[in-house]
Amino acid sequence: MTSRNPQQTRDNLVQTAFQEIHRHGFQGMRVDEVLRLSGLRKGAFYHHFSSKTALGYAVVEEQIRPLVRSIWLEPLAAMDDPVRELPRMLDALPERIPPMMREHGCPLNNLAQEMVDQDDGFRQRLLEVLNEWIDALEATVERGKIQGYLRDDIDSRAVARFIVAALEGCIGLAKVDRSPEQWNACRSQIAGYLETLRPVAG
Amino acid sequence: MTSRNPQQTRDNLVQTAFQEIHRHGFQGMRVDEVLRLSGLRKGAFYHHFSSKTALGYAVVEEQIRPLVRSIWLEPLAAMDDPVRELPRMLDALPERIPPMMREHGCPLNNLAQEMVDQDDGFRQRLLEVLNEWIDALEATVERGKIQGYLRDDIDSRAVARFIVAALEGCIGLAKVDRSPEQWNACRSQIAGYLETLRPVAG
Repeated sequence: MTSRNPQQTRDNLVQTAFQEIHRHGFQGMRVDEVLRLSGLRKGAFYHHFSSKTALGYAVVEEQIRPLVRSIWLEPLAAMDDPVRELPRMLDALPERIPPMMREHGCPLNNLAQEMVDQDDGFRQRLLEVLNEWIDALEATVERGKIQGYLRDDIDSRAVARFIVAALEGCIGLAKVDRSPEQWNACRSQIAGYLETLRPVAG
Repeated sequence: MTSRNPQQTRDNLVQTAFQEIHRHGFQGMRVDEVLRLSGLRKGAFYHHFSSKTALGYAVVEEQIRPLVRSIWLEPLAAMDDPVRELPRMLDALPERIPPMMREHGCPLNNLAQEMVDQDDGFRQRLLEVLNEWIDALEATVERGKIQGYLRDDIDSRAVARFIVAALEGCIGLAKVDRSPEQWNACRSQIAGYLETLRPVAG
């Protein structure tokens, strides 16, 4: 549907491009198809974006970043004891994410793996989003230390970096394998890993 | 360089296509460019492959599968105590892999993340290679149990599935981040996770 409201037109383009990138990758996304699906003409596109790449950057900032915030950052900010609560969050994850993410995996990691060595503008923007996620997890680990749920001597940044990497790997393998075993294996072993962060009893 | 030896021509095409896919993704790989780089004409391509997709499948079978075998399966088959030896293997990994892999990451995971929901032929072939890797790690864990390096009660398959997922995630994040901190964090936390597999002392 066309719209005379420029902001609405722009949002329409960015949302449609996000879905097409999530389905086909950035290189597989065709601006012509985005226009067809949005019911817009080429003029509308060039009014808002100088290039396909500029549209891709807008997808990172306006679609992927908010999605990472709502799926990961908000629950992490509300978490006290990650050893107990993170595995529960992973149990609930398949239900919490949009159906498209169950099929196509993590849009942040997909785009990062495709584009970071093709275009430095993508790399910088995607690394920022990844670092925002790592920062949020690091803050959760720091809070867990202060509240006595986690050992004092753990390297919070390293823990946060590893958990984000392991999650992306687990989501990626679940997309290839499609069996519940793969996700359950990741969930159980992440829970086991998290137990290593507990203070030693005694 | 052209060649009158059909097998050599075919190998030349598959090797060049592998490098182009590793650099640009399968969708970003152009057959014309593969032919230009190989010094071959279109006729040579259609003599060996019915389509770009058939060339992509050959890359999985003839380039990616042997690479996974030499980088992962061979050292895993020679490993007795994975808790001690796997972190050492990760330390040596950046030196052991071809320079292209340091820049572009894991060709197996890159292609899997790009193509599994685009084409079921890619999914089946890539899942086979992934499962070969998971099988090898499972066998290493089983051997470690028998030799008393690992607890009897661990789920070897789940451990193997998680380690492969975590490794792919770690390689993927290192590709985006490019800082030694990301890889070191993964290495140290995987070592900590592996310690949970040790028999309880006493």
